[in-house]
Amino acid sequence: MKNLISKLGVISVLIIAMSMAVYAQDKVYKLKMGTTWGKTASPLIDTSIKMAELAKVMSNGQLQIRVDDATKHKSPLGILDMVKAGQYDIGHSASYYWKGKDIELLPFTSMPFGLTAPEQYAWFYHGGGLELMQKAYAKHNVLSFPGGNTGVQMGGWFRSEIKSAKDLEGLKMRIPGFAGEVMAKAGVLVTNIAPGELYTAFERNTIDALEWVGPSMDISMGFHKIAKYYYTGWHEPASELQFIVNKRAYEKLPKRLQEVLVLAFRLAAYDMYILNYDMNAKAWENMKKEFPDIKVKSFPDDVKQILQKANKQLRDEMAAKSPLLKEIFQSQEEYMKEIRQWSIISDYQYIKDNL
Amino acid sequence: MKNLISKLGVISVLIIAMSMAVYAQDKVYKLKMGTTWGKTASPLIDTSIKMAELAKVMSNGQLQIRVDDATKHKSPLGILDMVKAGQYDIGHSASYYWKGKDIELLPFTSMPFGLTAPEQYAWFYHGGGLELMQKAYAKHNVLSFPGGNTGVQMGGWFRSEIKSAKDLEGLKMRIPGFAGEVMAKAGVLVTNIAPGELYTAFERNTIDALEWVGPSMDISMGFHKIAKYYYTGWHEPASELQFIVNKRAYEKLPKRLQEVLVLAFRLAAYDMYILNYDMNAKAWENMKKEFPDIKVKSFPDDVKQILQKANKQLRDEMAAKSPLLKEIFQSQEEYMKEIRQWSIISDYQYIKDNL
Repeated sequence: MKNLISKLGVISVLIIAMSMAVYAQDKVYKLKMGTTWGKTASPLIDTSIKMAELAKVMSNGQLQIRVDDATKHKSPLGILDMVKAGQYDIGHSASYYWKGKDIELLPFTSMPFGLTAPEQYAWFYHGGGLELMQKAYAKHNVLSFPGGNTGVQMGGWFRSEIKSAKDLEGLKMRIPGFAGEVMAKAGVLVTNIAPGELYTAFERNTIDALEWVGPSMDISMGFHKIAKYYYTGWHEPASELQFIVNKRAYEKLPKRLQEVLVLAFRLAAYDMYILNYDMNAKAWENMKKEFPDIKVKSFPDDVKQILQKANKQLRDEMAAKSPLLKEIFQSQEEYMKEIRQWSIISDYQYIKDNL
Repeated sequence: MKNLISKLGVISVLIIAMSMAVYAQDKVYKLKMGTTWGKTASPLIDTSIKMAELAKVMSNGQLQIRVDDATKHKSPLGILDMVKAGQYDIGHSASYYWKGKDIELLPFTSMPFGLTAPEQYAWFYHGGGLELMQKAYAKHNVLSFPGGNTGVQMGGWFRSEIKSAKDLEGLKMRIPGFAGEVMAKAGVLVTNIAPGELYTAFERNTIDALEWVGPSMDISMGFHKIAKYYYTGWHEPASELQFIVNKRAYEKLPKRLQEVLVLAFRLAAYDMYILNYDMNAKAWENMKKEFPDIKVKSFPDDVKQILQKANKQLRDEMAAKSPLLKEIFQSQEEYMKEIRQWSIISDYQYIKDNL
């Protein structure tokens, strides 16, 4: 009898130990992610959802991430604040939306005349970009990672051709953010109009031109039905979204799940770049089929020179106020000087030879 | 007493059930991967190793993949055979190495005048490419996935400038594979020389020209010390490696680990594309610093036309013998027609505007 009870004791200890082991392996971490995107903003919201699915598979179900689109929290541009405050553990947005709060976060989405998508991924992962991004976000107690790339954003839709810099003077254009500041220096009357009212404003001549994203997202807005001139990109050559994470929430995760989460970010980001490349190609083909008279134009040389000069001037002014910003701009510029030489003799020359 | 014993019975069942649960969650699957690459073939072998590490992290240690470089199995080009026979569960190689065994596997690495790296990833994941690749590999009882991209491979090193098609006639060049067949049609005397003897053969004028990869892998071979002309790429615009898996070995894995393995393949592939983009940029900068008189050239128009014609003719001959090959070529060609239009007005035009 005594023997049996002591056996029972050993057995109990075994059961408890095994329960703990099973529990630790199975423990589910429920995280909340807030995004800037509306329900139908493909491929942006799709990428948020895809990331949550990847994290679930890779973690064997231990990471369960609830994805809130912007209709849930009603604050599409408040993602950084909400993640910082812990209202959300994770955010999916774009760094340059917060330039008003922290100018040092601006360069991690895309800079005018800056890096292309593969160049920028190489900068993030092999040129010191990711480290600089963490440094800039550290003051917010937030970690930040690449979150998907749109590729080149087009320069926008124009009702009339821009033949010289003169044609920009007094032109009413919807182009928000830093690119808008650059355009303003070129004499453009920059306005901002809510997305829902853009089509009507454009149709009724309230504005003469507007910038949205690229074919994949422009097509559903219908701007190609109004304007004939589609200008090529200069201001956002490779807009990278960001996944951001509240540092405390991150540190509460076991190391393995931290690793898995970062891998899910990285894969979801690459996947979006490729998905959107395909979507752009299909949308552009469809636009041309429906409206064969769309004309793709690049800005004339004098306009380019003015924009480049304005961009440099605004950048220098910002850098003068922040040593970190100066460091980031320098890092991007030096890296671009090196990597662009390769882009030119590889993909660029290849496409040129086969035009 | 009876009561205690029956309790013990219940407890035993519980212990067995929990042990089984822990075991199933913890069960380690040891897989072997054979690669085509030598120990120092960076970034190729690094990508094999990286993939194994990613699979380990994502599977929480359940997938343990031993990576054998070519010095282990002494059969760098026998990976398909070894994976088919089950000697290896996984292989890391390039599909076009097996064109002698199965011509239908040729187009999944890269085709002359074909897709660029982002275009090709988009074709694999959104244009039906991955499905066609599985179809072509099914007869071997092997699954196949993208395994990392080198980007544009350069057209090769030439001792003298190629000013017209005449200069190709009788030129001795090391250029293996399908590209060699195309070059032969242009009058080139195509030879193959073992990598270890290439430098000496080139230095001693045994050959007049050679093709290797791109700056990241060419630099350690030292060809830039011998030849002054570096020709831009045409024959492998985006060489994609492949991870291949023995179907039975794959089917023995639990579904979750199958998923995880495929995610590790996908992430390791993208990572290599970006890593090699950076390595090419750095190597190219270093080459130019050391030998500022290297001249980058594109083949003149008459050479391009001859190569394009020869390529088309050889492709048509192959396609006539295999309906599947015809289907693959058609799929690539139609997809390229669509997506190249977007590449031209996005990255290409952007780089052009900022030359």
